[in-house]
Amino acid sequence: MEGDRMMEPMFQFDNVVYRYGGSDAQPAALNGISFEIPRGSRTALIGPNGAGKSTLIFHMNGLFRCASGAVRIMGEPVTKSNQAEWVRKVGVVFQDPDDQIVSMTVKDDIAFGPLQLGRPVHEAHRIAEECMALLAIEPLAARNPSDLSFGQKKMVAIAGVLAMDTEAVIVDEPMAFLDPEGQRLIHDVLTLLAQRGKTVVIATHQMQLVAEWAEQAIVIREGACLGSMTPRELFGCRPELLASARLDLPPVAKLMSAFAWNPPESMPIRMEEARQWLRQQQDL
Amino acid sequence: MEGDRMMEPMFQFDNVVYRYGGSDAQPAALNGISFEIPRGSRTALIGPNGAGKSTLIFHMNGLFRCASGAVRIMGEPVTKSNQAEWVRKVGVVFQDPDDQIVSMTVKDDIAFGPLQLGRPVHEAHRIAEECMALLAIEPLAARNPSDLSFGQKKMVAIAGVLAMDTEAVIVDEPMAFLDPEGQRLIHDVLTLLAQRGKTVVIATHQMQLVAEWAEQAIVIREGACLGSMTPRELFGCRPELLASARLDLPPVAKLMSAFAWNPPESMPIRMEEARQWLRQQQDL
Repeated sequence: MEGDRMMEPMFQFDNVVYRYGGSDAQPAALNGISFEIPRGSRTALIGPNGAGKSTLIFHMNGLFRCASGAVRIMGEPVTKSNQAEWVRKVGVVFQDPDDQIVSMTVKDDIAFGPLQLGRPVHEAHRIAEECMALLAIEPLAARNPSDLSFGQKKMVAIAGVLAMDTEAVIVDEPMAFLDPEGQRLIHDVLTLLAQRGKTVVIATHQMQLVAEWAEQAIVIREGACLGSMTPRELFGCRPELLASARLDLPPVAKLMSAFAWNPPESMPIRMEEARQWLRQQQDL
Repeated sequence: MEGDRMMEPMFQFDNVVYRYGGSDAQPAALNGISFEIPRGSRTALIGPNGAGKSTLIFHMNGLFRCASGAVRIMGEPVTKSNQAEWVRKVGVVFQDPDDQIVSMTVKDDIAFGPLQLGRPVHEAHRIAEECMALLAIEPLAARNPSDLSFGQKKMVAIAGVLAMDTEAVIVDEPMAFLDPEGQRLIHDVLTLLAQRGKTVVIATHQMQLVAEWAEQAIVIREGACLGSMTPRELFGCRPELLASARLDLPPVAKLMSAFAWNPPESMPIRMEEARQWLRQQQDL
């Protein structure tokens, strides 16, 4: 049985509809959306502002329940009776880090999740210290999270979700407000989580991050899924899809698109492959 | 006299110190910082999270008053008695758009500033409509700003500041949470404002935006100014300065740095110049 369950996708959305306020008078925020996110995969949700990405994420840890259609997490449908359980299995970092501050010090804030999951105090504190070290925020340990900059709060919110050691980690706009070094750290942490077998999902407007990090991009517009594919296919072969979702090529691909590529998906879209290709051209 | 005042820099910081809570026990958020921002210029404030960029911005419209040193706006020192006036002359879009929502509809929210400045209702509404058109957010006019996505709220906050038609416009993290099309729109608006003679200041972690848009980059770390220079000098010639402020080359410059450039500031740092240079290489 366990073996079977491991084969199930982490998330399955099947014709999901959701309206804010629950009223038919409201336009649907999710409009019959269907897609799958495999276990252990690195997935990017992309699409214009207001497309429904954050609403979608609220369905991925049971915070919202859909009006019609079905959301399955590890094969199990999200229902009224099990809705509250998913918070322990799916860690979510929301867009606004202020929504996630619960304690008077950064360390206590990060230890809060493990304590809620029943870990003893000393262990929760050890976990908090590990997560702070991973994100290089130890110097903030004794600070009040409310006094921090937005970018620092974001790091604290991410550490708090890491501390819960959930099966899946979802980060809405991971890089917003982070300085370049913070962005590198988060990039490495997102990769590390996937290497440890976690399912990692991000929602982002940074197309270069999609190119460098994601295995799968799910393109969303007006509460529906326009398609899911590899970043290489999206950026190399689907200009019409990018345009219809108000998206853009990542900077590296935009530069590389000055040349002709055949087949189109051979175009370098990552920084290191583009640098290597340019160096080879120089040597010819 | 007016002619003389026009020659004054828009903003002058002279050895400015600020501590949160006003207590000497707190570390200084601004630590004797000095710099100038010329009138009508396009300036980017850059530096790591927690460097003091947002604190600095709070001093640029009189919201905060420094503990020691002097802040001058258009040549006039910010004092206890004139502190409140600057809000009408310097428009600021803060990091968190939730901090700036005051009305029940987007249109009223944008019209609020002009109304506060004494404009008649019909004129304030006309201005709000113009600003919504500029940012392509007319479809949101009747929505409650609280119901919008973070990126949409950011657009509304920017429109609200545009509507005030201030001498200077400051935007803290203009691109955070905006989709690529929204980012293009804001880029164009920031450029348009400068063309109309406004002083435009942004704080950002997006180095490509600094390369494409700014005339001057002011590098900040630990509440002090490490230097101000053109983006071309910063990205072409000052790798040690970038590293010490936890910053990074913009993607285009990172790709172009695969080649040797002499003099170093001849390295293309903007998308279009890099594309042109690559095409020329192909033709050789």
